[in-house]
Amino acid sequence: MKAFTAWFTGLPSSGKTTLANLLHRELLQKGIVNAELFDGDVVRTHLSKGLGFSKADRDTNILRIGWVCQLLTKHGVSNIVAAISPYREARNEVRAMVEKVGGEGSFVEIWVRCPVEQCMKRDAKGLYAKALAGKLPNFTGISDPYEEPLDADVIVNTKVETPTESLNKVLRLLEKRM
Amino acid sequence: MKAFTAWFTGLPSSGKTTLANLLHRELLQKGIVNAELFDGDVVRTHLSKGLGFSKADRDTNILRIGWVCQLLTKHGVSNIVAAISPYREARNEVRAMVEKVGGEGSFVEIWVRCPVEQCMKRDAKGLYAKALAGKLPNFTGISDPYEEPLDADVIVNTKVETPTESLNKVLRLLEKRM
Repeated sequence: MKAFTAWFTGLPSSGKTTLANLLHRELLQKGIVNAELFDGDVVRTHLSKGLGFSKADRDTNILRIGWVCQLLTKHGVSNIVAAISPYREARNEVRAMVEKVGGEGSFVEIWVRCPVEQCMKRDAKGLYAKALAGKLPNFTGISDPYEEPLDADVIVNTKVETPTESLNKVLRLLEKRM
Repeated sequence: MKAFTAWFTGLPSSGKTTLANLLHRELLQKGIVNAELFDGDVVRTHLSKGLGFSKADRDTNILRIGWVCQLLTKHGVSNIVAAISPYREARNEVRAMVEKVGGEGSFVEIWVRCPVEQCMKRDAKGLYAKALAGKLPNFTGISDPYEEPLDADVIVNTKVETPTESLNKVLRLLEKRM
């Protein structure tokens, strides 16, 4: 299997981390061990402590993750990333960085699509509640923009699909492409 | 060859980058392509834009490089790092991070030793001159400390050794250990 970067983008609580974990587990079960899982929140503690949630800081955070993905791709390691990554331009920059070393199609943008009302209901970390109460500025979907992908490689609709259904969509594309 | 991290530490203009480049080229000539070269200054643009040269910021920068080295080590990729890395504790933390996944001895601390007077004479980037003129605060060796390694794996003395002699010291250790 060629090294790929599966990039899950979407609103908070849309299901990115869940799907990224499922994909990682699936790969491990298939014996594919040369893959790394990056969760946006975890990465922030290692790469981006001190950065906030302004557009500039968010972009910097995303480009750093992209830089690490590029490094790993170069050495045949796949990446699974769960990050809100709300800005189109930054996502496209990361795609360019990864495909520069991994080849066209090695970056797979997965739009984890879910209506914000549904995300609010889930609110896994209680952050929507805080944001709606005005206690959390720059919260994507409430007080900060999310630029929907115009040309995602896969769209999963987590309001209506089960996690397994969504996962299978991603797996099908990866199998076809890699 | 097991994955290793060759970490060149020392004063500005001590010869870290020169030796790191030589080592990288030597590995490539031997057909060892699974190695990455990290130059402190270059890494700052990708990982640490916005960080300054206070102790806290320097440590953060070093730990970020260490985190990336750990990731690559996990996947069998070696690292060659040239970074002043003036603080002992941060260097030791990086050693621990790398050896946690690469095994004991996978981190090789190379002290690029050179008297500050000699480094000043070289002053490849004209920075000592600036620092001595008081125009560059927090400059290691002049207005910022350098904590010499107490237990380096290799010590190269670039004032008296040729680059090839220093390189050979490093290669001998790597061959023995990896």
